[in-house]
Formats: sequence, C-alpha cells, structure tokens
Amino acid sequence: MEFIIKQNVFSKALSDVGKAVSLRTLLPILAGIKIVADKDGITLIGSNSDIIIERTISVNDDKVEVIKTGSVVVSAKYLVELIKKLPEQIHIKSTNNQIHIKAGTVSTQFNGFQAEEYPSLPIINGDSIHIPAEELKDAVKTTAFATAKNETRPVLTGVNLTFTDNSLTSVATDSQRLALKKSEIDSTGEGSFVVPSSSIDELAKLVNHYSGMVEIQSAEGYIHFKTDEFALYSRLIAGHYPNTSALIPTEVKTTLVLSKETLIKGIDRACLFAGEWKNNNVSLSIHEQKLSISSGSSEMGNIQELQEISSIDGEEELKISVDGYFLLDALKTIKDSEIKIKFSGSMKPIVIESAEEESSYLHLISPVRSY
Amino acid sequence: MEFIIKQNVFSKALSDVGKAVSLRTLLPILAGIKIVADKDGITLIGSNSDIIIERTISVNDDKVEVIKTGSVVVSAKYLVELIKKLPEQIHIKSTNNQIHIKAGTVSTQFNGFQAEEYPSLPIINGDSIHIPAEELKDAVKTTAFATAKNETRPVLTGVNLTFTDNSLTSVATDSQRLALKKSEIDSTGEGSFVVPSSSIDELAKLVNHYSGMVEIQSAEGYIHFKTDEFALYSRLIAGHYPNTSALIPTEVKTTLVLSKETLIKGIDRACLFAGEWKNNNVSLSIHEQKLSISSGSSEMGNIQELQEISSIDGEEELKISVDGYFLLDALKTIKDSEIKIKFSGSMKPIVIESAEEESSYLHLISPVRSY
Repeated sequence: MEFIIKQNVFSKALSDVGKAVSLRTLLPILAGIKIVADKDGITLIGSNSDIIIERTISVNDDKVEVIKTGSVVVSAKYLVELIKKLPEQIHIKSTNNQIHIKAGTVSTQFNGFQAEEYPSLPIINGDSIHIPAEELKDAVKTTAFATAKNETRPVLTGVNLTFTDNSLTSVATDSQRLALKKSEIDSTGEGSFVVPSSSIDELAKLVNHYSGMVEIQSAEGYIHFKTDEFALYSRLIAGHYPNTSALIPTEVKTTLVLSKETLIKGIDRACLFAGEWKNNNVSLSIHEQKLSISSGSSEMGNIQELQEISSIDGEEELKISVDGYFLLDALKTIKDSEIKIKFSGSMKPIVIESAEEESSYLHLISPVRSY
Repeated sequence: MEFIIKQNVFSKALSDVGKAVSLRTLLPILAGIKIVADKDGITLIGSNSDIIIERTISVNDDKVEVIKTGSVVVSAKYLVELIKKLPEQIHIKSTNNQIHIKAGTVSTQFNGFQAEEYPSLPIINGDSIHIPAEELKDAVKTTAFATAKNETRPVLTGVNLTFTDNSLTSVATDSQRLALKKSEIDSTGEGSFVVPSSSIDELAKLVNHYSGMVEIQSAEGYIHFKTDEFALYSRLIAGHYPNTSALIPTEVKTTLVLSKETLIKGIDRACLFAGEWKNNNVSLSIHEQKLSISSGSSEMGNIQELQEISSIDGEEELKISVDGYFLLDALKTIKDSEIKIKFSGSMKPIVIESAEEESSYLHLISPVRSY
C-alpha cells in the first residue's frame, strides 16, 4: 500500500473515525484504524462494540494520490496524534504490517496489524430511507439528552427513530421526562429503531458540518447511516420501545406563552439554589399575571423572580415543582424565541411546545415532590 | 451594609478573590468571601491556608455607590455563580448575617457569617520594592513550571525571587531541570523569598491584564503583592534555597543556534514516541550539519527528523538524551524566535539561552539514561 495525501484532510478523517475507537478493548486490533487504499481512494475504518465509523477520501478531489493499493491496521492513539503534528504533504507506505510515514524531513515507522484480521463490516441490504442531514441532526440533537442514563430498562438508553410515510418521529425518555421531535421527509421507507445514545452523539458530530442527504438502511441488529463522505453503523438496542403517546396529558388547565431566553436565565439562576434538593426542585407559579420562579433551602438561602408572560389561557391558580435542570435541558434545544407551556395540575407532567399553531417538538417533564 | 454595584465589575472581582477560596476547609467561614463596604468603596477578601486575595472597587470609578457601610461573609461557591447570572445593576444589603441581593425582578437571600469572625490580614510593614507588572509576570511565568511537584524537598516546590540592587532574579528547579530569569528593575529594595508555586500561579492570573506597578513587601512568613486594584498575600516557604549557580556547566563543547518554533514542533512529535520510556527520552545529535531529533520504542515504532541549524560552534560529535517534555516546557516560555543550545557532553546538562549576546533567561535540563 502506498499513497500521498494532504495532511489536513487525512488528519480530519482520522480524527473522525478515531472517535469510534476505544483504547480499552480485549482485541488489540480494535484499538487500531484500518486504512484501505484502492483505485477510488482511501477508506478509514474505526470501531468499537457499538459503532463502526467509515470515512472515504476520493481520488477525484485531488487530495489523495494512490500509488499502490493495499491495506493495514495501525494503532489509533498514536497515528491520530502524529498526523496532527506533521507538515502539509504526507507520504504513506506499508510493508509487512509496518507503516512508514514521511512528511518533509520527518520520517516515522509504526508497527501495525494484518488488515485481514480486522472484523468485517455488517452486511446491509434493507430498503433505503433518504433524509437531509440537517433534519436528521435536528431530530437527534433535540431528543438524545432525554435518554435514560442508567441501564435498568436498556431500551430507554436509546433514541427511538420511527419512520412512517414521509415522516420521522424521534423520541427519548428516561421516564421522568420525554423529548419528541417530528420531521417531514421526502422518503417513503418505514421502520422503527432504538439507537444507543452514544451512537446518536457520534452521528450528530459527523453530520454537524454536512449538508447533503443521509441514506439510512438496516439489517439484523444494525442501522447504517451513509453519505458520500462517511458512514456510521450502529448496533440497535433490542426490545420493545414503550408507547409514549399515552403519557401526554390531554386535559390542559393553564397554557402560558413566554420568552424562551428569559425563562432559561431565570431557571438557570434558580437551579443554583436547588442543589440541596434531591431533584433540583424549582417552583413555578403565577403571581399577579407574572410567572414566579423560586427555589431555596433553609440552610443556604433562596431566590425568587417574576417574569412577564405574553399570554395566559385558563386557570391562574397554579403551583408546581419540577427538576430545574430537566427544564433547562429541554429549553436549550429549542430554537423558537417564544414557547408554550401547558399545565394540567400539580401532579401531572408539564408540556413544552412551540408557540406556533403546529409544534414539531414536544417536551414533557414530570413534577417532583416539594416536601 | 448596603451598596449598588455594576454586575460585570462585581462578578469579575468576586471571581478573582474566589480563586483563593477552597471549598474543603475545616473552618466554614473560610469557604466564604468577606465583603466590606466603607466610604471609599468595596473590598472583597478570599483566602486559604496559603494565600489571601483582596480586591477593591473604588467609589471614584462610578461603578459602585455605598449607601451604608458595614461587612459580611458569604459562601463563595454560590455567590460567585449567582452574580455571574444576574442582570446589569445589583443592589446588596445585609442585615443580621443575611445578605439580600436584588437585580431587576430577581430577589435572593443568603445566609452569611459574622464578618468579625473572619481571620484578620497579616500585618505587613517591611520596605517596599516596586516592579512593573509586566516584568513580574514575565519573571514568574517563565520559571514557575520548573518547580518540584513532589514535597520531598519543600523548598523546591516554590519559586525563589531574589531582589538585589536594581534586579530581580527568579529561579525554579526540581533538581532535574532549572529555569532562571533576570529582570532589571528600578527599585533598590533587597530580599530573597521562596513563594509556593500555587501562589505564583494566582499572582500570574491577577497581573495578567494589569499594566501598572506592583508593590512588594514582606513580613514574618508572608509576602505581599499590591496594586491599586488588588493585593495578594502569600505564605513563604521556610528553608534555605540551594545555590543554583554552581549547577550551570562552565565548559561548553558545542553551541547551536536554531529556530525555536521548528524545534518545538520536532520535539512535540518525538514526544509522541517517547511515552514508553520512564523519562520521555528524546535523543538529539548532529548529522551532516543538521540537528537530528529521534525517539522510539521497539513495541510501537519510531520517529526521526533532521532540522536546519543556523550556526554550529565547537565539536560536531554530539549525542544526548533528554526528557522531551522538559525541553518543551522550557521552549514554550521563550519569546525569541532563535535560541542558543549549549552542550557540555552527554552526561552534563544542556543549557538553553537567548541567541542574543546577553541572555536574560537560562534553562538547564539534565540528560537521561538512554539504556
């Protein structure tokens, strides 16, 4: 194997696939990155037990020149760091599982592994769903935070992506809160998948600066996200994802419309005083047609503030305590400047939606005990 | 006590003194910040067992208006964070060890401590030495990294500041390496002090954006750095600081002049391969009038590169191994674009100086075993 490649291109691609590589692995070869050079260009592969990330650099872009095809596996830890520190043009050559790297007057040599020993990729052959990268990014970024952090119910540690005719619904819940996002898409494929939140995080990073289309396919136990620059295979979480639509309160007592930014600042301040409660209790109530946000403990002190409300619909008698950090997490994913909060009583979850007629997202947060 | 203060000014000052406050302290009052309001303005004090930081905000700058004099001590942890999150204008009032903070529609209340219970400041009455903040910053930033990290010889964990007629010499050594910086100053005070490196770090942060003069005084066991904005009291380390001038090799065999930036990049790359050695061994030698930098291990691989040298003076037969990270630490503090390295044999320390005729700094790095 032999090729010449631009340093910045190689470094970025290595660092993308390096994110999938775990240094603590029983199989030493999995701590490596597989480099394949063929007539079309270079392919880099990094993986762990949950995900596989693949990056391709095509010869068409004049960023890589393949002199001799072949493949090798090299320890990710050192390779990623070294390539970052090298000058512009990099010449790579492998012989007998050794990789020789030359750049300017710098010459290095790594011990590698037999590329043949690297696990092969899952075979994917299901139907394809196509979705703009932007929509996919939005769907996962605005829900993944609400996945369960403990493994009591494994299925809740993932994000549930459901494709039906021309729509994607993304849902995550840890049973105290729920985040839901609906996206209209121009693809008719169907399917429902529970993707681990760690895979979702890596996917969000990969699509972050990508503006094209993403092709989604699945196969036994795997889901495959693919663009012309990268591919990510993720293990799926087995099990039945709960029907979350039943959790959404139907009988609304009070609906408030208010400024998201102002609310974020108020909740953020109140959270400072909420740390002594098990659930970071922040209390919300209506006081003289304003939203009162308060928190405090006898030991430390307390905080209270009043915020303007754009509109109140329904009962003005209202008092509820929620986990302030859960509320912040949800608010921070919202792009709208005004939001709607629906209250259904002090023991029922609050619902946060867009102030627009049709909300494409919904956040549900259960109340906490305030005694 | 009652005053009105600009949020950004108060927040910055609190965060400056908050750096001295340790959350793990036996005396709960030391986890607080003392706030004193008098006719001249506001003084904030934070301290731990090693340092005391004092910040003053004068009424003359129109940033604070004192309504009623007095003092109180408030938990640093919450106060610093809260003030960061408040709107522009802050109204503070204390009654019976409680502090009431109002800003816009936000109203908070903290439990505080009796200000009288806060330890009093050390009494400082020695001679004054005056030094421009810029010079002091340079003197400590370019040496503090070389202090010993373990406490075997406590005196080596500090930076030795020696003032003699019109000069300040700053020295730090962990016995494997040494950093020295000489500054000419316009003050005739004398004295030699060993200041803990943690105090030096805080001092460097405080003087970072300050361009006036710093007044230095000492008293039993303490040194006092004072400007019109802040003051820092630091505990001194007791004990006799070693005479380091005897360590500097007198008989030089080879002197190289070369580019600092290029050398930093080369050593940085070589360090990647040096991790398997106990002392991060990086080897330097001369090869065809170029500097060869190499490192490596049988398990992982190796690196070698050749760098241009501006001038060689003396023997060209040269081979020495040093701790690559020690070399990087020293090079990174140097502002010159060209530096001089003096070699006195493979078992003697190397010396790094300015390529200029008169060097105001000197770094000494002992060789390491390469077998």
